[in-house]
Amino acid sequence: MIKDAIAKWHAYVDSNDTSGLDELLAEDVVFHSPVVHTPQEGKAITTMYLMGANQVLGQHDFTYVREVMSGDNAVLEFTAEIDGIIINGVDMIRVNDEGKIVDFKVMIRPLKAVNLLHQKMGEALQQFAGK
Amino acid sequence: MIKDAIAKWHAYVDSNDTSGLDELLAEDVVFHSPVVHTPQEGKAITTMYLMGANQVLGQHDFTYVREVMSGDNAVLEFTAEIDGIIINGVDMIRVNDEGKIVDFKVMIRPLKAVNLLHQKMGEALQQFAGK
Repeated sequence: MIKDAIAKWHAYVDSNDTSGLDELLAEDVVFHSPVVHTPQEGKAITTMYLMGANQVLGQHDFTYVREVMSGDNAVLEFTAEIDGIIINGVDMIRVNDEGKIVDFKVMIRPLKAVNLLHQKMGEALQQFAGK
Repeated sequence: MIKDAIAKWHAYVDSNDTSGLDELLAEDVVFHSPVVHTPQEGKAITTMYLMGANQVLGQHDFTYVREVMSGDNAVLEFTAEIDGIIINGVDMIRVNDEGKIVDFKVMIRPLKAVNLLHQKMGEALQQFAGK
């Protein structure tokens, strides 16, 4: 189940086709940001964060470098580079019995990269909000 | 192989018996901190960082909350709480064919927790260096 979901996730990331993302997320999915403690609940806000991240990172040599999967969980490690700063992070994904994503958590290192993403994500989300 | 190594890792964390850690780490193990990009190479410095982390986090409701393992890799998610700040992180562990840890990476969220750990780890490592 988790392998199917991750294959669909990669298809979404590669194509940036948001209908694929819509199919993949459960209605009650929760998003956990690398910056803020408070979980973001629901499909609408999770979609906004994931699209924002794709916009910020997608154009900057974004590459998945390690995949670890077992049970209902996958951890996908990635690297990217923005303005000369190397960003290393994980997408931590949990699916339900239907193979839909119910929990999506992102962690980032090093500190410099967390601060940079904080700033860039703020700009991207403001753009979405202004639409 | 990874499951055996992780069982030994938990035994070390629970006991804080550093001889267990010594057996578990490969000579050429590399440590990747949540704060700094530059990898820390070798068993001596990796041991220092892991003992520092154990000292900083071990007394603060440190709990592993999710384990994902496949192939040579394990990702262990943890939580802790220091001074009212909730710390959420992952230990990302890769082993070699002998079941020894060759790569140990830590990521932390949220931003407030990265900053707090940066400060606390600095203090702990200075203590070790002064010994």
